[in-house]
Amino acid sequence: MRDLKRFPVVKIDEEQEKHIEDEVVVEEPLEIRVNGESVSVTMRTPGGDFDLAVGLLWTEGHIHSYDEIGTMAYCPDEKYPDLKNVVDVRLVDAGRKLEPSRRTWANSSCGLCGKTTIEAIHQACKPITSGLTAAYNVLCALPSRLRQAQINFDRTGGIHAVALFDREGALLLLREDIGRHNAVDKVLGAALAGRLSLGDAIMMVSGRLGFEIAQKAVIGGIPIVASISAPSSLAIELANDFQMTTIGFLRAGTMNIYTHPGRIRTA
Amino acid sequence: MRDLKRFPVVKIDEEQEKHIEDEVVVEEPLEIRVNGESVSVTMRTPGGDFDLAVGLLWTEGHIHSYDEIGTMAYCPDEKYPDLKNVVDVRLVDAGRKLEPSRRTWANSSCGLCGKTTIEAIHQACKPITSGLTAAYNVLCALPSRLRQAQINFDRTGGIHAVALFDREGALLLLREDIGRHNAVDKVLGAALAGRLSLGDAIMMVSGRLGFEIAQKAVIGGIPIVASISAPSSLAIELANDFQMTTIGFLRAGTMNIYTHPGRIRTA
Repeated sequence: MRDLKRFPVVKIDEEQEKHIEDEVVVEEPLEIRVNGESVSVTMRTPGGDFDLAVGLLWTEGHIHSYDEIGTMAYCPDEKYPDLKNVVDVRLVDAGRKLEPSRRTWANSSCGLCGKTTIEAIHQACKPITSGLTAAYNVLCALPSRLRQAQINFDRTGGIHAVALFDREGALLLLREDIGRHNAVDKVLGAALAGRLSLGDAIMMVSGRLGFEIAQKAVIGGIPIVASISAPSSLAIELANDFQMTTIGFLRAGTMNIYTHPGRIRTA
Repeated sequence: MRDLKRFPVVKIDEEQEKHIEDEVVVEEPLEIRVNGESVSVTMRTPGGDFDLAVGLLWTEGHIHSYDEIGTMAYCPDEKYPDLKNVVDVRLVDAGRKLEPSRRTWANSSCGLCGKTTIEAIHQACKPITSGLTAAYNVLCALPSRLRQAQINFDRTGGIHAVALFDREGALLLLREDIGRHNAVDKVLGAALAGRLSLGDAIMMVSGRLGFEIAQKAVIGGIPIVASISAPSSLAIELANDFQMTTIGFLRAGTMNIYTHPGRIRTA
């Protein structure tokens, strides 16, 4: 398994000290090159690297359709021939160079304030007009479905999961990564490659709902985003602006709806 | 309060639907300029911004001592005069320009593999030789002390805390932020500014122990780093290499010691 690694551990509790082995989530750098030039290095859990590359190029505003992707391959390295930590993406437009300066929306707004950050995103995407609605009961079932579908969490306790569900709560896609934003990019990349209709999907994230997660969901056009944990102020402000429904603290039959509650049916 | 904001929320449980207000952690971009030029934009919770700037410049290898800092001030903005989202750092060496390309260690290693990332850090810092030891009982008390000292978690459920404790478990410093890496930078920046001896300190983090957190602790020379949650493979490999003791899953009287267990006393 490329995504788990075993390490020796001294485990101490009130009664004893044991020398055991523990499974740990793998974290390795991934470099993404586009048309031969490096555009990004991210620390990620190996696996789904092509999904991650596509998702990251999409959510950072570089591509808008999977048709723009020509080929993708791991770059061989002379020194480490087995290494799969560099993905080379060749665009159909083989001469295109990506601007290396604007790698994130935060950077593009140059630190002015959340408001200007949100304005920058308005230049790249539209408000979400999807008429999707979801029932309270369907939403309440999602956290346990996410957990059941997560293969690595129970073994390591240290990996984030992001999943897409349909309006009836059926699982469409799930990806795991040590970084929440990578897990979102993997899911969105897989959805773009698979021509999944994100306007009919509910996204569930295992961690907090910060700005970066909300921004990626807005680019994807996902109408409902739910988290078992807390949102941030800027995530709420962004979701409000882009007509995205956000739900926090979805656990044990309760939920807080922070924005656009009209999509949630209680009766 | 600049770090909390109130939002309207629809709260639903099995019995009712209520319209309430909820306190949410503020997330806003902070731009850090050095000698007038932008070097970094990070999404952070406002507060401790000068600590964050100092810590980030230190842990990214740009400065090595607080004596290199001349002055720090918020940049006034004509359009938003009350905005405090740009910190201008003037170095004593007023003519110095920072290389804008190498902003993180991950980037400096250009995605080859974890091993090359660790090698890059070896060029910047030494293994930790501190003879500090800590008793099992002292460590077991840290999670509840961290939680008690965290002013914002109970109100929002969405903020990370990082604290420094001495060998007896007394709290030295605590900072909170929506981003774990920012909370570490705030703590390290405050420690550098306050001339705190980090070789005698234990760092406790409220979240996972990934590479970025371990790397910052190594730069700081902190001998013992503990987390209530899981470490990543690369964090363990880095800590092993730099003789830093790392502890995961520190909760309810149990702990997993992943590296250099010699610093932990059980008797």
